[in-house]
Amino acid sequence: MGKIEFVTNGTVTSPQGFSAGAVSADIRHKGDNRLDLALLCSQEICTVVGLFTENKIKSPSVVLCMKRAQQGKAKAIVASSGCANASTGEQGFADALEMSMLAAKVIGAKPDEVLIANTGVIGVNLPMPAIRTAMKKLAVKPEGGHDFERAIMTTDTVPKEVAVTYKDGLDTFTIGGVAKGSGMIHPNLATMLVFLTTDADVTPAYLKKSLQEAAAVSFNMISVDGDTSPSDTMLFMANGLAKNETVTGKSALAGVFQQALNQVCIYLAKAIARDGEGATKLIEVNVKGAANLKEARLAARTVVSSNLLKAAIYGNDPNWGRVTAALGRSGAQVEESKLDVYMGKILVLKQGTPVPFDKAKAVTALKQKEVPITVVLNLGKAEATAWGCDLTEQYVVINSEYTT
Amino acid sequence: MGKIEFVTNGTVTSPQGFSAGAVSADIRHKGDNRLDLALLCSQEICTVVGLFTENKIKSPSVVLCMKRAQQGKAKAIVASSGCANASTGEQGFADALEMSMLAAKVIGAKPDEVLIANTGVIGVNLPMPAIRTAMKKLAVKPEGGHDFERAIMTTDTVPKEVAVTYKDGLDTFTIGGVAKGSGMIHPNLATMLVFLTTDADVTPAYLKKSLQEAAAVSFNMISVDGDTSPSDTMLFMANGLAKNETVTGKSALAGVFQQALNQVCIYLAKAIARDGEGATKLIEVNVKGAANLKEARLAARTVVSSNLLKAAIYGNDPNWGRVTAALGRSGAQVEESKLDVYMGKILVLKQGTPVPFDKAKAVTALKQKEVPITVVLNLGKAEATAWGCDLTEQYVVINSEYTT
Repeated sequence: MGKIEFVTNGTVTSPQGFSAGAVSADIRHKGDNRLDLALLCSQEICTVVGLFTENKIKSPSVVLCMKRAQQGKAKAIVASSGCANASTGEQGFADALEMSMLAAKVIGAKPDEVLIANTGVIGVNLPMPAIRTAMKKLAVKPEGGHDFERAIMTTDTVPKEVAVTYKDGLDTFTIGGVAKGSGMIHPNLATMLVFLTTDADVTPAYLKKSLQEAAAVSFNMISVDGDTSPSDTMLFMANGLAKNETVTGKSALAGVFQQALNQVCIYLAKAIARDGEGATKLIEVNVKGAANLKEARLAARTVVSSNLLKAAIYGNDPNWGRVTAALGRSGAQVEESKLDVYMGKILVLKQGTPVPFDKAKAVTALKQKEVPITVVLNLGKAEATAWGCDLTEQYVVINSEYTT
Repeated sequence: MGKIEFVTNGTVTSPQGFSAGAVSADIRHKGDNRLDLALLCSQEICTVVGLFTENKIKSPSVVLCMKRAQQGKAKAIVASSGCANASTGEQGFADALEMSMLAAKVIGAKPDEVLIANTGVIGVNLPMPAIRTAMKKLAVKPEGGHDFERAIMTTDTVPKEVAVTYKDGLDTFTIGGVAKGSGMIHPNLATMLVFLTTDADVTPAYLKKSLQEAAAVSFNMISVDGDTSPSDTMLFMANGLAKNETVTGKSALAGVFQQALNQVCIYLAKAIARDGEGATKLIEVNVKGAANLKEARLAARTVVSSNLLKAAIYGNDPNWGRVTAALGRSGAQVEESKLDVYMGKILVLKQGTPVPFDKAKAVTALKQKEVPITVVLNLGKAEATAWGCDLTEQYVVINSEYTT
């Protein structure tokens, strides 16, 4: 059995054969020179799988990307920030198509080998003249993942990128990833932009299955504000350059591949939650003893999504009644007389009865950068963890001034 | 056909035979002398129906109140604010029972003729010694509805009370109501405290049906913050003193009774939404042309509940993309190419394509105290309206400092 290790300064170009780059196309604010147009590509054609927003109003770029991802093969991803190309009518489809064609030219690929993702304001058309000009300056390099990540950020305050490597006597492979998202984030499939790469050789079926499993314990377990964007896209490209024994659902490597992918996805998901708009801390809700996994996840997500709890945590207020109130409306089976609740490591409710606790200690526990809350339902053996952030005045400030 | 008219200074004691009163029991803050313990009663025994929180963790007071309301007859309601008596274990049941017994003594009723409701902090036991003392000073009077309302307020900034009277040649009856709630408010059955009274003679079956119908178009169509409290209670008492022809589902008066009750409930529901914690304005979302009523309501409620939209409205930002984003995730059938959206009266999206609009005019429309948003799905004939409020820094301030 080999070892999974984090790669120093790991990013989406850490796996073999991937390169990336970014330029400023002045999409959002003219003249700010911010990187906002980016390209990620593989020297070899990749097996690709994707997960997309479940919002019934999907951006034209998402519609195009879904169609191309369904073909199962791709070589590159073009992405931009500042304009989501969502709710943009017929023009939006034409622009998405042209943007992918321009990107294909940059790397000499076929247009249908290029996937696309845009993030930013809804209801505004892409500034195509500026994009055409900027695309000519776009070039890729092996260390370009860092620039790629910076170019897809919107209200994000920190880049979110990571890579892990697995090694044993026979095989070695790397999985890298970048993500953006700090608003319109809520438990749902692919609620942000996430781009994952690997040099592992993986069957299309297992690539899909592993991505679904990883999303279920990571990106589907975070919430910033309960909104789901029309642009959410998660893509996973595998180019096979590691020349490992092909990973299938039955192969010896399957377990470790899933484990490595989960590490990458949980790292990125927590980074998104921690960087929630206006957030000052990460909230981690652990639900234990649930009747089944579905209910454990439902309960954890509902608690971490409660505006009232999020505001209380911001104020370092050990108001655990907001935990039980959210739990009770989550839809998960709850028996009050069996319920234990911990704020930080402090037991505040035991078998449904309040436990006197040292309020000063509880306030100190809530003042940490990471605040764990644990709920023990004592009904079964299922567990789940969800992540979110506190709700602050700054969230309101950011979101009341977004387009004006 | 007669007329429904608002009663000047109408409240829960406007219908014949009801009286109420309130005192300070210093439940929340010692020595502030704020009214916080209240009693409402009828001189005759009433037919009573109730709707209660769907939260799986119900307060002991709700559990007791549900049991008594199910008997179908009651004479009084004792209510308090400052402590919800929720998540209080066995002691909570004993306290709820004692509180109802003390109230029964005040008016010479049987304990099981007294209903109970408490609102306030969760997880703290009722201060029974203070309540015992205060209960001795509690008296009721015909104009006491106003004091009753003030005593049940928590973070509410304004009292919410109303009454309407119906008169025709033969019959006259009055319906009055009070409500509290400005946090933990979300579409769900009975998401706050609402007490309704009438002197009309109504069959128990029709009283229940009319209450359910009225709740569906009023209290179930408002949202402040997506949370549902363990204490939500809605009670409707009818004492029959108007001596009208008994209202049944088939009687001539049924339509006008429902209409009058809807007026009372919509008035109170809008008052709650407008007084949402930290709110500066009322948002009204009208969904038209939905495939069916269920989806119309779902769509309207989802849009009015979006944190991102609520923050944008606060900032007078006509960011209509947040309307379509919420609509798309609502679960209601939506076809982007058929969709029209109006911010105020300004058309911003027509058949899925953005319409250029005068931004200054849109900002002015959003600066009003009441902001209507209209979504036309063009898929059918169903309509629904939901109400909510903007999300402000003040919401965060209020909710980060609640128990500390």
